[in-house]
Amino acid sequence: MASQSLKWIPIGGLGEVGKNMMAYEYGKNILLVDGGLMFPESDMHGIDAVIPDYSFLKEKREWVRGIIVTHGHEDHTGAMPYVVKDFPNVPIYCTPLTKGLLEIKLKDAKVLDKTTINAVPTDGVVNIGPFRVEFFRMCHSIPDNVGLGITTPAGLIVHSGDFKFDHTPVDGLKPDFAKLAEFAGRGVLALLSDSTNAEHPGITPSERDIEPALENVFRDAEGRVIVATFASLISRVQQVVNISEIYGRKLAIAGASMMDNVKIAQKMGYLEIPDGMLVRLEDAVKMPVHEVTIMATGTQGEPSAVLGRMATGRHTLLNAMPGDSIVLSAHPIPGNEEYVHRIINRLFQRGANVIYSPLAQVHVSGHARQEEQKLLISLLRPKYFIPVHGELRMLMAHGRLAQQLGIPPEHVFVVENGTPVEFSDGKARKLDRIPGGYVFIDGSGVGDIGPVVIRDREVLARDGFILIVLRRDPHGGLADDPEIITRGFIYMKDSDEFIRNMAQSVRESVKGLNGTAADEAFKEKAVDALSKFVYAETRRRPMVIPVVA
Amino acid sequence: MASQSLKWIPIGGLGEVGKNMMAYEYGKNILLVDGGLMFPESDMHGIDAVIPDYSFLKEKREWVRGIIVTHGHEDHTGAMPYVVKDFPNVPIYCTPLTKGLLEIKLKDAKVLDKTTINAVPTDGVVNIGPFRVEFFRMCHSIPDNVGLGITTPAGLIVHSGDFKFDHTPVDGLKPDFAKLAEFAGRGVLALLSDSTNAEHPGITPSERDIEPALENVFRDAEGRVIVATFASLISRVQQVVNISEIYGRKLAIAGASMMDNVKIAQKMGYLEIPDGMLVRLEDAVKMPVHEVTIMATGTQGEPSAVLGRMATGRHTLLNAMPGDSIVLSAHPIPGNEEYVHRIINRLFQRGANVIYSPLAQVHVSGHARQEEQKLLISLLRPKYFIPVHGELRMLMAHGRLAQQLGIPPEHVFVVENGTPVEFSDGKARKLDRIPGGYVFIDGSGVGDIGPVVIRDREVLARDGFILIVLRRDPHGGLADDPEIITRGFIYMKDSDEFIRNMAQSVRESVKGLNGTAADEAFKEKAVDALSKFVYAETRRRPMVIPVVA
Repeated sequence: MASQSLKWIPIGGLGEVGKNMMAYEYGKNILLVDGGLMFPESDMHGIDAVIPDYSFLKEKREWVRGIIVTHGHEDHTGAMPYVVKDFPNVPIYCTPLTKGLLEIKLKDAKVLDKTTINAVPTDGVVNIGPFRVEFFRMCHSIPDNVGLGITTPAGLIVHSGDFKFDHTPVDGLKPDFAKLAEFAGRGVLALLSDSTNAEHPGITPSERDIEPALENVFRDAEGRVIVATFASLISRVQQVVNISEIYGRKLAIAGASMMDNVKIAQKMGYLEIPDGMLVRLEDAVKMPVHEVTIMATGTQGEPSAVLGRMATGRHTLLNAMPGDSIVLSAHPIPGNEEYVHRIINRLFQRGANVIYSPLAQVHVSGHARQEEQKLLISLLRPKYFIPVHGELRMLMAHGRLAQQLGIPPEHVFVVENGTPVEFSDGKARKLDRIPGGYVFIDGSGVGDIGPVVIRDREVLARDGFILIVLRRDPHGGLADDPEIITRGFIYMKDSDEFIRNMAQSVRESVKGLNGTAADEAFKEKAVDALSKFVYAETRRRPMVIPVVA
Repeated sequence: MASQSLKWIPIGGLGEVGKNMMAYEYGKNILLVDGGLMFPESDMHGIDAVIPDYSFLKEKREWVRGIIVTHGHEDHTGAMPYVVKDFPNVPIYCTPLTKGLLEIKLKDAKVLDKTTINAVPTDGVVNIGPFRVEFFRMCHSIPDNVGLGITTPAGLIVHSGDFKFDHTPVDGLKPDFAKLAEFAGRGVLALLSDSTNAEHPGITPSERDIEPALENVFRDAEGRVIVATFASLISRVQQVVNISEIYGRKLAIAGASMMDNVKIAQKMGYLEIPDGMLVRLEDAVKMPVHEVTIMATGTQGEPSAVLGRMATGRHTLLNAMPGDSIVLSAHPIPGNEEYVHRIINRLFQRGANVIYSPLAQVHVSGHARQEEQKLLISLLRPKYFIPVHGELRMLMAHGRLAQQLGIPPEHVFVVENGTPVEFSDGKARKLDRIPGGYVFIDGSGVGDIGPVVIRDREVLARDGFILIVLRRDPHGGLADDPEIITRGFIYMKDSDEFIRNMAQSVRESVKGLNGTAADEAFKEKAVDALSKFVYAETRRRPMVIPVVA
């Protein structure tokens, strides 16, 4: 048999390696795993989302045999509308709940008819080209989450997916330890494992461990209980349902995305809500305050989500008020801390009692910490180890853990997005990085915003702009005083004198030019003089745009 | 004696109550405490710093008898150049190191000659108008830090200042427990206490507790050891000096602000560096790597500080390289996490080993946690309690602690900046809020940037702008195609067709106007049509500015 190599490629994304999308390539066969999006970093001004740059696959389009989606979170599904557009008719494989959630997303994007989604049970097996893929259940903060055992001609690769080892998950469905043991028996060529919490020692608490803190809130609450969490955190909804039942409270859902998810999960049997418990928000707000629980979105400080509007009094139905007990059952995603804290302060200002971490353990992470990460490595005894799903600092920490467990340093591959690892004859090596990075989504634009536009936005955000309108007279000189318009630089209404002085500096600057000088010469002189004048006066560097009329 | 009331006023600042400046007013006497600045929040685009809005004091200017500065950190001293300009000749009182640091600041701002700074020992007493102020030592992350016992005609107010109860501080100078006990004996009308860590249970570790982790770094390091921390963290410098001596390493300082602080602290005896240990950075980088320690600034992710430049290879002398052990001996200030993480990733990319929290305990907070906060309350047994130095959520947590210790809820005053508390006849009550807030510093501008400009910057940051230049012909119609200029909206070079279409939409919109229509009518039509066209095409809402030439 001619020896072919298997290439594993973490596809260009933002920060977290292989989180949003990865590819397995063997001969003329490509298997994709996940198609997620990332939230932009805070200095990516105006960008709505970031998706992986899979453009290098476009010339190999017909090699793509299938796409597996490991679970229904945005960072694994959010780019699927774009992926489906670019790879129509490539079959998608995922578990039933993931299918349900993905269908909503693809329908909203009007691309559901361009593809086929195959439901696979959490212990199902699918053959995709030369890849035999065994799904196996792993716990995470959404039901129906799986890891993958991918038997390739080069050997067995195990991909943990997003995971934690929860022995007491809310749905009672534990990680598939037996399958992990079986993989180990067969021999694992490489393990790719979730590095999100590799900097944190110990074990991530079980989902169940938040129940005492939730109990305290319900026991002490005299008014409404409002629990804010991620729209997809079905198990948290189940916990709040259970405890609301005990305390005789009805439940309303505030937030369209959470409502969608709850409906799908309920319909498919992933969420059990007693008959008559679920009420409409408009009814809930009219009920006696001690008879109602409300679940809401907006835990990341988004001003336009439910919690943000509640905090500023801009929700039509649901504003925070004295007597409310408001639980933030989610941790801020790094970069959002400031906005989340602001909302907490505002909820307190409105007289509500706010319960959040670290005041009480009302949330736990969905990702394994060091001791669980070690356990996975020990269970699987892989020959090679590739930390994935994390920024470089987390991968480094995870890689060190693997070495502590006896995996030789040269068998640990810490790579960044775009850098493939090749497996051939039982050996692994790093290949050269594939050019590319990630793609900005801005409004309806995909990839049309690049570094130049972002840099301009940065300048505009910092100091605004000044527009100089130069009018030339019939002899070519300056017809009258240049018009000066600014935005984001100074408050024009209070700055008459300064604006006159700016105009004066422009007028002076073009004095030496004679009537035959080109417009460009006028512009250049004006911009140069005005920029210097403005910097000297204000120590600011607004963008200066000249127009010759 | 006519009963007069004492007013305590936390002066308008950003988020943290009374952190940057507070006032005590009795009759026609005002005592100010601290004059600090805050870092802007991340959506305060382009703002360099924020200072308290003390404008309400301007009409009472001649009542201001003195200004006390409790310690030398920016958030307590950074606004002093502005304060000194506005209250010239009002005497300043502070401890010797604080005086040294403040002198540098006021000299840089060219206002040192406008005031007098009086050095007061950490156990000194000063009489300022009707206020008798007793300084007392409290531990914090800078030497010569004090709390204040202020005996007023209304009673004794104790202000904790920034504090932690460190029993083993690096300089050996412990909190003045005896003075606290004495205050309690005299009877404390009100305690104002630092709430920074009121959300965190337990005790903040001692400065000494980071030494094992630092030891590990020095023991294992084969190359350079680079320790980044706050420029003012003199005790951290002392710790690094001590351990560098043991390991036979010379020390260089990278960062002008840290160098200034080190020089002053060394000159004044707050820092002991063995003769010959301190070397210039340009020499240090030429020495054998295992013989050198470097201390650097930039732990908050600032791209232009030393660590940021090291991480991106833009420092002229000092770039991170394989073999370097780089310690981040500071926690990110909330809002900076993303930038700090980015720098850690980049340092790893350059091959350095990076040691940071939570991987190792290489930093401890300078602020008391709950058990220390409780201890202070128990030691002083105040009649009234006012949590200060914190956002509302922290004050709420601190207020709850005080209640747990038996202070009645109606004796706990959680107030926001600008809301005075009045003490009269041994009773306290909240007064109406003083209008005002905080003042933006942008470049050399103080307070000239307000909400309108910030809102414009927000729009510009998100979607940039489009400029329409309309030229009218002699008959009043549109002379030729309107000129379209954009920045921060689309990449103009790749968008010829779209720009033509934008011009077309403008042309269409003004067709119905006859030659006598006013310029304003042309502008209005054009802006309206173009905004709609652009939103339909791109789902973006750039600012649209019309100019008629």
